[in-house]
Amino acid sequence: MINQQSCSSINSQLVERFGSFTREEFMDRAKSFHGCISPGVLVGGIMVDSAMELLPQGTLFDVICETRSCLPDAVQILTPCTIGNGWLRILDFGRYAVSLYDKHQGDGFRVFLDPAKLDHWDEIKTWFLKLKLKHDQDNVRLKEQILTAGKEICTIQPIHVKSGFRTNRSKGIINVCSICGEAYPAKDGLICLGCQQELPFRIRN
Amino acid sequence: MINQQSCSSINSQLVERFGSFTREEFMDRAKSFHGCISPGVLVGGIMVDSAMELLPQGTLFDVICETRSCLPDAVQILTPCTIGNGWLRILDFGRYAVSLYDKHQGDGFRVFLDPAKLDHWDEIKTWFLKLKLKHDQDNVRLKEQILTAGKEICTIQPIHVKSGFRTNRSKGIINVCSICGEAYPAKDGLICLGCQQELPFRIRN
Repeated sequence: MINQQSCSSINSQLVERFGSFTREEFMDRAKSFHGCISPGVLVGGIMVDSAMELLPQGTLFDVICETRSCLPDAVQILTPCTIGNGWLRILDFGRYAVSLYDKHQGDGFRVFLDPAKLDHWDEIKTWFLKLKLKHDQDNVRLKEQILTAGKEICTIQPIHVKSGFRTNRSKGIINVCSICGEAYPAKDGLICLGCQQELPFRIRN
Repeated sequence: MINQQSCSSINSQLVERFGSFTREEFMDRAKSFHGCISPGVLVGGIMVDSAMELLPQGTLFDVICETRSCLPDAVQILTPCTIGNGWLRILDFGRYAVSLYDKHQGDGFRVFLDPAKLDHWDEIKTWFLKLKLKHDQDNVRLKEQILTAGKEICTIQPIHVKSGFRTNRSKGIINVCSICGEAYPAKDGLICLGCQQELPFRIRN
């Protein structure tokens, strides 16, 4: 748990809320959904909350996540956007960035964890840039720093998401693959994408 | 809601349980997490449950989903595996298939919705192969058919997931991109993947 006293020396307040959740409620959700209160889901929660705050009240929004790590779960805990309902999309550029934008108009906000803002937060910098082994991290201090820094370590950019990306989602006509016998989007080719490449699994006898 | 009476004519029982949830509990979860009880998340729940049943009790498992549509949310509702904790991975082949496998040994089961088993389920076939417009679907009948058919419309294959896929997950060394100033995995190249391509959004002034 976070020790509030040990943060008082830097004369700052801990993040109190994540969207409609209190800090404790968000942590409970992180634990049950994500499996643990990881630094990534914690800083992700702050990032998602920062973008939500900037959207006009009642905006129907979609989300782009630029990493597969942790951040998508903060989105799925705090917003109605999930990977399966398609309102959350992951473009895996390996950047710790999330964008929330009006699904009709395309205007929104991109928030990223900014390496240039980490000089006063040694434990966050060390974790984010992997400057020491995970085993040598001080996890309690890391989470304290994240909850104390809050959005101070993020950079927020107003963005516009192009209309083609917002609207072009149909799978189109469905074919049955002549090799595996499964259904797939005809636009993928004469056979399905699964049969076009080497798979990471094999059928056991 | 599902009308149990109208299914009695085909002399079969509705699916009662999804993992540790009753049917009603699963539907409530689908509504709150996925946003609605879509046919995809319903059949997805049956598929995930079928694979879980076959894994030895207590197996620590990971998941591969071969589509982004609906199915990943059934996984996230019924298992501890999420997109952000990395225990669920999506290989978007556009096939309605899910694999659950022992994360250490690699053995598990792949379940797919089988077009060859849909001849007695006209509404499921019509929806799955997109044989008529969404607007013309009979959604109540579709969900009744899904809950009556249960795993009868699925094919299950024992699989082995290759060790390289199971273990090779590290981002490796982290760089700061000289163009955008953001952190990214050094193995992606001299600049980050985001700066290597055209993005679906632009920064607003």
